[in-house]
Amino acid sequence: MGYTVAVVGATGAVGTQMIKMLEESVLPIEKLRLLASARSVGKTLTFMGQEITIEETCEDSFEGVDIALFSAGGSTSAKFAPYAVKAGAVVVDNTSYFRQNPQVPLVVPEVNPDALDGHKGIVACPNCSTIQMMVALEPIRQKWGLDRIIVSTYQAVSGAGQSAINETLNQYAQVINDGVNPKEVAANILPSGGDKKHYPIAFNALAQIDLFTDNDYTYEEMKMTNETKKIMSDENIQVSATCVRIPVLSAHSESIYIETKEVAPIDQVKAAISAFPGAILEDDPKNQVYPQAVQAVGQKETFVGRVRKDLDAEKGIHMWVVSDNLLKGAAWNSVQIAETLHDRQLVKPTEEMVFEIK
Amino acid sequence: MGYTVAVVGATGAVGTQMIKMLEESVLPIEKLRLLASARSVGKTLTFMGQEITIEETCEDSFEGVDIALFSAGGSTSAKFAPYAVKAGAVVVDNTSYFRQNPQVPLVVPEVNPDALDGHKGIVACPNCSTIQMMVALEPIRQKWGLDRIIVSTYQAVSGAGQSAINETLNQYAQVINDGVNPKEVAANILPSGGDKKHYPIAFNALAQIDLFTDNDYTYEEMKMTNETKKIMSDENIQVSATCVRIPVLSAHSESIYIETKEVAPIDQVKAAISAFPGAILEDDPKNQVYPQAVQAVGQKETFVGRVRKDLDAEKGIHMWVVSDNLLKGAAWNSVQIAETLHDRQLVKPTEEMVFEIK
Repeated sequence: MGYTVAVVGATGAVGTQMIKMLEESVLPIEKLRLLASARSVGKTLTFMGQEITIEETCEDSFEGVDIALFSAGGSTSAKFAPYAVKAGAVVVDNTSYFRQNPQVPLVVPEVNPDALDGHKGIVACPNCSTIQMMVALEPIRQKWGLDRIIVSTYQAVSGAGQSAINETLNQYAQVINDGVNPKEVAANILPSGGDKKHYPIAFNALAQIDLFTDNDYTYEEMKMTNETKKIMSDENIQVSATCVRIPVLSAHSESIYIETKEVAPIDQVKAAISAFPGAILEDDPKNQVYPQAVQAVGQKETFVGRVRKDLDAEKGIHMWVVSDNLLKGAAWNSVQIAETLHDRQLVKPTEEMVFEIK
Repeated sequence: MGYTVAVVGATGAVGTQMIKMLEESVLPIEKLRLLASARSVGKTLTFMGQEITIEETCEDSFEGVDIALFSAGGSTSAKFAPYAVKAGAVVVDNTSYFRQNPQVPLVVPEVNPDALDGHKGIVACPNCSTIQMMVALEPIRQKWGLDRIIVSTYQAVSGAGQSAINETLNQYAQVINDGVNPKEVAANILPSGGDKKHYPIAFNALAQIDLFTDNDYTYEEMKMTNETKKIMSDENIQVSATCVRIPVLSAHSESIYIETKEVAPIDQVKAAISAFPGAILEDDPKNQVYPQAVQAVGQKETFVGRVRKDLDAEKGIHMWVVSDNLLKGAAWNSVQIAETLHDRQLVKPTEEMVFEIK
């Protein structure tokens, strides 16, 4: 016996990885249902050797579903997640829509699994760029405390979906094969599909991910700030981010500077990272060992290297953190949340309906 | 009438740009001599419509030379720059070899031109990643002081020379046209031609530029620290850098965090940057205006955007700084130094020979 699991947004860059992660998961799955928008209906995808036909996401799609993994954009989650909860499913939502809702736990299972205990039917998976930072920093926070974080990201195009991957490959083909100047290649998606202007990413770096907010930080940057405070249950942690898209297909890299509350000896920091579940220390400068995006693709762990003292600040530490944004940053963290809900016997209909059906 | 100028390393990625920058310079040039290693002898390059034949760099190459621009690697500068000085030339050296020598001014002409006054025949051009940071920060330092800098770089492959550009283009062709997995492409140059292991740069980010030093920072990172202190004449400025190579052909981007001594209102900071020679403010988030590498290629200026307050630190400011590493980061800054030496009537044989001829 097992669960009926639904994947909403099954054909997307994250959705297809969710199916793969469910195949590799220990979660007992009796039936998998694949939901997507109307234009994908009738296509099939394979799960555990079986072809599954894609259905359209509807208000009544969730009858009999125990766990629904959402990754089809915030508006789809806003509209359909409450129906899933009403039908008795537990939703693991990979979009930003519910993340700051006080009724919704925001969970990285290695970091704050206890937050799941009070769930009301919806659990949010944090933003990709936040998750890998949490895995790298939680072992340090536990032992020496954490006062502030300054992070600059090097984010892969797959974070903007399959269309951004296609656009990137197409731009490189134009430059490499047709001799087009990188600043002249066609751009219709990045930096943000929802914004007015689009810029080339091939041989470029774009200091914009998601839209700009009123304080001149982007939503992506503010996600890193606000999600860190919520996941670490500490409003006083200072987080300022600069989020940058670079021409990498998958796996985000991050240059992170932190200040701890207590002085943290570097060898002990490295040992704490090594011992933390989901984190792998790759840090041997003398042998040129440090995490790399192309090596992290397809891996579920978060890789940490270049761990070193700030040259001046006694409590300052720098590091380089890399993880596959589609896996630990999205699909794998979502499936891990489902596994943890199962382990804690929290896969059950909610007693009280707190989410508005629109 | 004008100067006899020599370019040493004329066939390299920087050398060819030096020739172009000399064409665009107001420096009075009567004769240009192009020097390189033995394998380039006899080839020709064009300067102001005239073909010039490349000569081998020798101990006696500098007779009659007034200004010698060196960009052929540290060992070539170490060996031949003293001969150039002895022959009566002023050397502008683009390598790191002499930068920390107390007898050698380290100059960004917009920032510390007065340092030229005491030169002894050799002037050093700072590292590319340092120069653009100095142009962006000097206007702030002048008005509000500067306590610390935390910088994460997004550096172009051309900083590692023409062979790194070729390697990058070749790797992309393998991925795009032959379907090779990015982690399997051939790599023989990057991250550092002088190091033991080489890694792919296509669709990757490499947190190593130059070799590692004993403190687990790279030489590139320590250049940013030590050169900043020398150029700004302030040993107390705290600088910690994380230098990263990304798959951009030319133009370095930098995510810079600073803490000023006095609180600096952001609108005044932007005005100060705008008013500073060589700096261009590109900062209008509502209209998605911020500096981009592909737009900076071929430009002599340093572009600054995303200027904003830290979310917590009262004296903290973040910004995004982009400039063509081959131009302002190397060839143009070197030619600007030559122009400034000319303006100050400092192009003359040194009275006292302080550099050892080996």
